[in-house]
Amino acid sequence: MNEPIRPVPLEKAYRLLNHGPTVLVSARHAGVTDVMAAAWCCALDFSPPKLTVVLDRMTATRGLVEASGVFAIQVPVVAQTRLTRAVGTTSLATLPDKLAQAGVTLFEAEGHPVPLVEGCSAWLACRLLPEPHIQDAYDLFIGEVTGAWADARVFAEGHWRFEAADPALRSLHYVAGGHFYAIGEAIDAGGDMP
Amino acid sequence: MNEPIRPVPLEKAYRLLNHGPTVLVSARHAGVTDVMAAAWCCALDFSPPKLTVVLDRMTATRGLVEASGVFAIQVPVVAQTRLTRAVGTTSLATLPDKLAQAGVTLFEAEGHPVPLVEGCSAWLACRLLPEPHIQDAYDLFIGEVTGAWADARVFAEGHWRFEAADPALRSLHYVAGGHFYAIGEAIDAGGDMP
Repeated sequence: MNEPIRPVPLEKAYRLLNHGPTVLVSARHAGVTDVMAAAWCCALDFSPPKLTVVLDRMTATRGLVEASGVFAIQVPVVAQTRLTRAVGTTSLATLPDKLAQAGVTLFEAEGHPVPLVEGCSAWLACRLLPEPHIQDAYDLFIGEVTGAWADARVFAEGHWRFEAADPALRSLHYVAGGHFYAIGEAIDAGGDMP
Repeated sequence: MNEPIRPVPLEKAYRLLNHGPTVLVSARHAGVTDVMAAAWCCALDFSPPKLTVVLDRMTATRGLVEASGVFAIQVPVVAQTRLTRAVGTTSLATLPDKLAQAGVTLFEAEGHPVPLVEGCSAWLACRLLPEPHIQDAYDLFIGEVTGAWADARVFAEGHWRFEAADPALRSLHYVAGGHFYAIGEAIDAGGDMP
C-alpha cells in the first residue's frame, strides 16, 4: 500500500462515521474471511467509542462476527464503488471467491486480528459487545472501537479533508438500487452560533 | 408552507435515512415541545420500517420521547444549517424559547400527533419501541416508523433527486465543531453488477 495510513486517536474515532457513510464490515473466523457492505452503521458513543451495525442473519459476515467476537468497519471511497456494490450483493455461501472477484485486498494492523480492506479511507477495529436480545430481535450489533486509522490524504488532525482531496477519496452514501451519492461540499454553520 | 409534501410509502421510508444524514428529533409532551439535532440516527429495518437514534440523557427531547412514546425524525437541508446547529447546541432547560430563537416553525400531519419541523426535506413519524436495557446502557432508542413524507422537489417516486434539485435542499452530514458536509454527486455502481 502506498496510502499514508495514520492512527486516529480513539476519542476522535466517531468522526470517521459521523457523516453517515456506507461502510464495509469485515470479519474472520477459523480461516474464513468475509466482507460485506452496510448502509446501517452508526456511531453510538464518544469515549470509549462505540458503534452500531445491522447484520442480517443471512450474511456470512454475521456468523464470523459472532464466532470471533471481533470485526472491522471501514469507510470505502468513490474509487471503490464497484467493490462496495459487489461485496454487498454477493454471498460467500454461493460465491466462495467473492472477495477475489470483488477485487478486495486485505491487510492487518498490528495488535488487531481483524481483516482490513485496502484502499478505504478509514478503518475501525472493534470488539463485539454482546447484547443477545437486540442481536436476535433487531439484527443490531454493538461494537467497541479498539483501534482506528485513516488515510491522511483525506482525514488529518481529526478532520475529514474531502474538499482538499482527490474526489475519488470521497465517502459513499448508498440509497437503493445501485445508486450512491458521494459526500459533497463543506458547509460551515458560522462562527456566531454557540 | 409552499413545499409540495407528499407521503412516502412505508416500505421505502428507509431510503430517507439510508445515506446517513444528520437529522432533527422532535417530540412533545404535556404542552412542552423540543427539537434537537442528532448525527447518530440510522435505519434499522425495512418493513415495518424501524430506526435507531441516540438520545443523550442530558437532552430535554429524550424525556419528551420517553413520556409521550412518540417522536419524529426529519432531514434538515443546507438552507437550515444554522437552525440545525442552533437546536443542537442549545437546551430547553437553559433557553426556554430555544425553538423560536433557532427559527423553528412546527406543523403536524393528520393522524400523527408529533411536532414536525417546517422546511425539512423528509419527515418520519415514529412510535417508541421500548427497550429499557439499551436505552439505559447506551442511550439508544428504537422507533417504528408510522408515517413518512418528503418534499417532492427533492425526493420523488422513492428516490432522492439531489442532482436535479436546488442545492439548498441537500442533506447535511455533521462531522464536528460546527462543520457539516452537504450530500454530493450521484454515483452509479454500474449496470453490470448483480
